Amino acid sequence: MYRPQIKVLDCTIRDGGLINKHDFSREFARAVYRAISEAGVDYIEMGYKNSKKLFSAKEFGLWKFCEDDDIRRAIEGIESKTKIAVMVDVGRVDIDDIKPASESPVQMIRVASYVKEIDKAIFLVNHFADKGYETTVNIMAISKDQGPELDEAFHQIEEESKANVVYIVDSFGFLYQEQVEHLVKRAKAAIKTKEIGYHGHNNQQLAFGNTIEAIIHNANFLDATVYGIGRGPGNCPLELLVGFLKNPKFDLGPILDLISKEFIPLREKIEWGYIIPYAISGMMNEHPRAAIALRASDKKENYREFYESIRNIGRE
Amino acid sequence: MYRPQIKVLDCTIRDGGLINKHDFSREFARAVYRAISEAGVDYIEMGYKNSKKLFSAKEFGLWKFCEDDDIRRAIEGIESKTKIAVMVDVGRVDIDDIKPASESPVQMIRVASYVKEIDKAIFLVNHFADKGYETTVNIMAISKDQGPELDEAFHQIEEESKANVVYIVDSFGFLYQEQVEHLVKRAKAAIKTKEIGYHGHNNQQLAFGNTIEAIIHNANFLDATVYGIGRGPGNCPLELLVGFLKNPKFDLGPILDLISKEFIPLREKIEWGYIIPYAISGMMNEHPRAAIALRASDKKENYREFYESIRNIGRE
Repeated sequence: MYRPQIKVLDCTIRDGGLINKHDFSREFARAVYRAISEAGVDYIEMGYKNSKKLFSAKEFGLWKFCEDDDIRRAIEGIESKTKIAVMVDVGRVDIDDIKPASESPVQMIRVASYVKEIDKAIFLVNHFADKGYETTVNIMAISKDQGPELDEAFHQIEEESKANVVYIVDSFGFLYQEQVEHLVKRAKAAIKTKEIGYHGHNNQQLAFGNTIEAIIHNANFLDATVYGIGRGPGNCPLELLVGFLKNPKFDLGPILDLISKEFIPLREKIEWGYIIPYAISGMMNEHPRAAIALRASDKKENYREFYESIRNIGRE
Repeated sequence: MYRPQIKVLDCTIRDGGLINKHDFSREFARAVYRAISEAGVDYIEMGYKNSKKLFSAKEFGLWKFCEDDDIRRAIEGIESKTKIAVMVDVGRVDIDDIKPASESPVQMIRVASYVKEIDKAIFLVNHFADKGYETTVNIMAISKDQGPELDEAFHQIEEESKANVVYIVDSFGFLYQEQVEHLVKRAKAAIKTKEIGYHGHNNQQLAFGNTIEAIIHNANFLDATVYGIGRGPGNCPLELLVGFLKNPKFDLGPILDLISKEFIPLREKIEWGYIIPYAISGMMNEHPRAAIALRASDKKENYREFYESIRNIGRE
């Protein structure tokens, strides 16, 4: 009844960190790591490997940089088969900061890239693969880049990169299931030697349904976060995905405990979830930056005016 | 780009009324009716036609009974093409209370029925049809009744009833898109002279995605509620459905205004939405009654213990 190739990647600390400048405490990260490990989830992504030349450690928390020693301190003493992943953005990483995998607690590096940066992403992926890491290319904002350049990118990744996985990322929370089916099939038509992954955003409450759709069409790497945490609308809720998958290695209990103890109180302090301005930017296939700005203003509940302004983008 | 046969039915007042004993004020119902009318939504369901012999008007609000005069007062003076629907439950309606359609503000009566009560539902539907109403049969808890008795019910409705629409109702919020596809196709195999409808519950954040799936497979009657209001997890959010449909007769603006003005404050007073115990009862294909009881207790956030108790239902 289940597909053993399916791997679940929890990106709670990494994607949730976009809300609070990656400033989760080491204790919080440790609680998440412990629960994810007990739940049998395959990977956990702790944050970004950003260059400290570009971002100040005074302004951002630990998980903006993911120093190996900080990761070690968060996980030490916890029994786990869960592999550790970090993300890098094209143009924001200093590759000399990255030690060989054999000297690091990190096992996977994921490179986030727009279609137009794919050559740079392939360079990074191959560099990290040569250092011994599992690697992925995560193609962001794919709903805006569906012309022939997307097929070209898929072909290049297949031919030129050592990536293990190519992710379809619905950055704007725009896609619904027919489009997910189309994109996964299109990726699989070009990519024969790597797995396909799916990362949904939950603007329109479609992240979980779209992840199921990706599973149906044989995507095997699936991103999710505890209680759906993430910037704005957040992501596919891990508890729903684990509840859906039938592999007996997964245990929902530790994730439910973690939500009760850590995420219900956290949700009182920071905002994510079903929020109308993000639903609007999702249905309009727009970056959430306007919604983020609205939520920080005194017009945060002026939905109709916001909708009209988004409709008129580019019409002036 | 759009299918003109598609009809949207807003059941905000009816399904939302399950949270507060149908005690929305006439002003609130009026505000909803006005916005739904301005948005161009096809139907609005105001509540239940329950017998006052069975339920006390002291204990329940107006919309438990939906007297014609109360509906008239809520809608009078508002320009509208939106048709008015009410729901009846098998065994809870006094048919002598129902005037001919020509003397009533109501245009559609929907009969909610379990598969095993389908003969009684057909009797009611035919009675109301003979009085001049549009009618539907809403098959509840369909995820629990997928044996041959379901095909028998579909055939009976097709052969013996005057219903205009047969609804698939995911009462427990259990279904995902493959199952919705299966059920819609199974209904359409038996039912040739009536439309198929879909009513989702949002336990697992799948109500909107499943409604899209029903559309893909040619269901034409779609239920939704403003801001997803409804008992527990609520329903398919109307604003997402209207944002998805391409028919130019729909206008999202009035719905967004209604959410800003009425539903954001209301959500501070009564609870609905993504709530873990309902997600659990949904993934286990169970009635939400245990989740409702939990939320009213001092263990409301004890998710893991609740999950274990639901897993053990019937195992004692």
